[in-house]
Amino acid sequence: MTDTAAPSTSIEAEVAPLVRALQDAWNAGDGAAFSAPLTDDADFVNVYGMHARGRESIAAGHEHIFRTVYAGSRVEYRVESARRLRDDVALVHLHARLSVPAGPMAGVREALPSLVLTREGGGPWRIAAFHNTFIQQPGHAAPNQEP
Amino acid sequence: MTDTAAPSTSIEAEVAPLVRALQDAWNAGDGAAFSAPLTDDADFVNVYGMHARGRESIAAGHEHIFRTVYAGSRVEYRVESARRLRDDVALVHLHARLSVPAGPMAGVREALPSLVLTREGGGPWRIAAFHNTFIQQPGHAAPNQEP
Repeated sequence: MTDTAAPSTSIEAEVAPLVRALQDAWNAGDGAAFSAPLTDDADFVNVYGMHARGRESIAAGHEHIFRTVYAGSRVEYRVESARRLRDDVALVHLHARLSVPAGPMAGVREALPSLVLTREGGGPWRIAAFHNTFIQQPGHAAPNQEP
Repeated sequence: MTDTAAPSTSIEAEVAPLVRALQDAWNAGDGAAFSAPLTDDADFVNVYGMHARGRESIAAGHEHIFRTVYAGSRVEYRVESARRLRDDVALVHLHARLSVPAGPMAGVREALPSLVLTREGGGPWRIAAFHNTFIQQPGHAAPNQEP
């Protein structure tokens, strides 16, 4: 954070633009923009444990939710932690606050997405994996079956 | 994938022992064994969006749940997908089927944990990050606040 002309910067500073781009894309309801920072073969696990693969599939899924359950919603992301696993691999945990104005998901929820970022050569950080979980009191999950 | 005597093996084969060790540790109710494959500074996000850091903290949390809500529970893990992000960094998604015999979580639930694995030199794969989410029908999450 105190670097001036040095090439190495803190990982927090390096990932801030990506996180801001995600937030801006969500708040614009723009699935293509939300998915732009993903790698081509990215993995995405949503809060319901649904697993999508590949930027195009993930973009389509977000276009859908931005037109339906999350229409008009606003998200605020805060970087909760970020660390490098390798020079070109980073692990980031966000805190998300999601406000939904109407519909079945109306209300304010918090979530904790984790992101695995990679970059190639001197290129930008991209999201290789995104996994999201609602922050909830334990015990809310309904069983699929009896014991 | 077609290698025979070559030293490089499929990532699925390489991670299978680790996944089996996790499953065996859960089914033995052994928090220390469950946490043994973690890196010292591992991140762990559970199905309620609670974020623990470090092997010791994660072990203590599992010792607690193995004595309480998940006492006597059984888990079955299946590798849903595994891929290398780097030679020494891998991304694994599991399918988990958890059977709890009694108590507030009694029943059968499914979950989708994602794991980020790293290894140092020729050492074993270790878990740098674990993030888990129950597989649920959309719409179950209660809002924290009204809109």
